[in-house]
Amino acid sequence: MAFRIGLGVDFHQLGEGRDLMLGGVHVPHTVGAIGHSDADVLLHAICDAMLGAACLGDIGVHFPDTDMKYKNIDSKVLLADTVKLIAKEGYAVVNIDSTLCLQEPKIKPYVPQMQQTIASLIGITEKDISIKATTTEQMGFVGRKEGVVAYATVLLQRI
Amino acid sequence: MAFRIGLGVDFHQLGEGRDLMLGGVHVPHTVGAIGHSDADVLLHAICDAMLGAACLGDIGVHFPDTDMKYKNIDSKVLLADTVKLIAKEGYAVVNIDSTLCLQEPKIKPYVPQMQQTIASLIGITEKDISIKATTTEQMGFVGRKEGVVAYATVLLQRI
Amino acid sequence: MAFRIGLGVDFHQLGEGRDLMLGGVHVPHTVGAIGHSDADVLLHAICDAMLGAACLGDIGVHFPDTDMKYKNIDSKVLLADTVKLIAKEGYAVVNIDSTLCLQEPKIKPYVPQMQQTIASLIGITEKDISIKATTTEQMGFVGRKEGVVAYATVLLQRI
Ligand SMILES: [Zn+2]
Ligand SMILES: [Zn+2]
Ligand SMILES: [Zn+2]
Repeated sequence: MAFRIGLGVDFHQLGEGRDLMLGGVHVPHTVGAIGHSDADVLLHAICDAMLGAACLGDIGVHFPDTDMKYKNIDSKVLLADTVKLIAKEGYAVVNIDSTLCLQEPKIKPYVPQMQQTIASLIGITEKDISIKATTTEQMGFVGRKEGVVAYATVLLQRI
Repeated sequence: MAFRIGLGVDFHQLGEGRDLMLGGVHVPHTVGAIGHSDADVLLHAICDAMLGAACLGDIGVHFPDTDMKYKNIDSKVLLADTVKLIAKEGYAVVNIDSTLCLQEPKIKPYVPQMQQTIASLIGITEKDISIKATTTEQMGFVGRKEGVVAYATVLLQRI
Repeated sequence: MAFRIGLGVDFHQLGEGRDLMLGGVHVPHTVGAIGHSDADVLLHAICDAMLGAACLGDIGVHFPDTDMKYKNIDSKVLLADTVKLIAKEGYAVVNIDSTLCLQEPKIKPYVPQMQQTIASLIGITEKDISIKATTTEQMGFVGRKEGVVAYATVLLQRI
């Protein structure tokens, strides 16, 4: 089939002593996301959406958090690997739309740099990678600033 | 490219002294959704999905909740504006599928009116706008009736 | 239109004295999902995504949890019925991507069997049904092992 869709969702706790990496960009903040890798929730959701659309398993299958090779790894490396995996299956990205759910900080100033970073890794233009953000209106673990969630949806087409 | 996809998610607290607006329709209930605008969580998720698919930023970028112009605004106005924004980019809606997550009330009796309202604003037929609903089985902030969440996914095509 | 998209999300509490049914497969575990049917959160999200894409309402409309006919029903029956409903509208599934959010157990060993089960019911190949899994990193009701959530996105095409 010519087109395929995918949806990724990822979760990370926030804590002190960590950089907040979002969409491949360091966002200055008092806390960062906790994880085995650099815990970039947005890149992880995007990788998962791409892998899911191509039916290649998930990020935990390809980059297990029990593997020391991925300890504190820059998630841009995982995205680059994901791009190769879907290309090998004969697919390319049409467009990606994503949403970061976090109570703070405001990420709007960093969105263009995230778009450039991701577009360049995937080989699409910045108009093909959308990054939105919302709070959860103080509700739940995101509202209590305990964590962050990201959703990403992707449309692939056969090359 | 001919097709593009988007995904929107929106959150609002519930509280007294507010009308519950869902999908452009007033749903009689003991509490309503709280927000700067009329807090129509379903229309906001749909606007965000459309903006995301067209890579035009998010609802917060176009209709900031710090702008008094949008104080208590009818979100149908925001959806109408969103339709214009995506048309200017050369896109039209193929179909929308959405889900309201709320513990109560039952929204099923209001779904046809929501579909008519939204279809008419977007210029599609009622068969192209799906509105589903689910509780969260008493779990989390939705289950405790503290808030509502809406998800919307949209497929756009180049006109 | 040739293509349509849908998104389903489903929630179930976990509790003792129930089998954990996920993707049509019994996953041995200390607790199971609670519901009127067999509470297969993954199959329900998939049914809802398919119904939503075809604008046929939701799982609660077609298989109400107040109907004794669906008491403890095997959700594979609901999926088979959903496939018939969308076929009657003239649609077939291109691909499905799904994500199970649950803190435990590890479902990876069961994914191939889930894929076979679902693919066979829908009449697609296993490469067209993706099943991913993630924890919520101990956060929220999923993190506290009170419940499970599933997301599914589907692309339909006109037959
Ligand atoms: Zn992650
Ligand atoms: Zn809103
Ligand atoms: Zn269910």
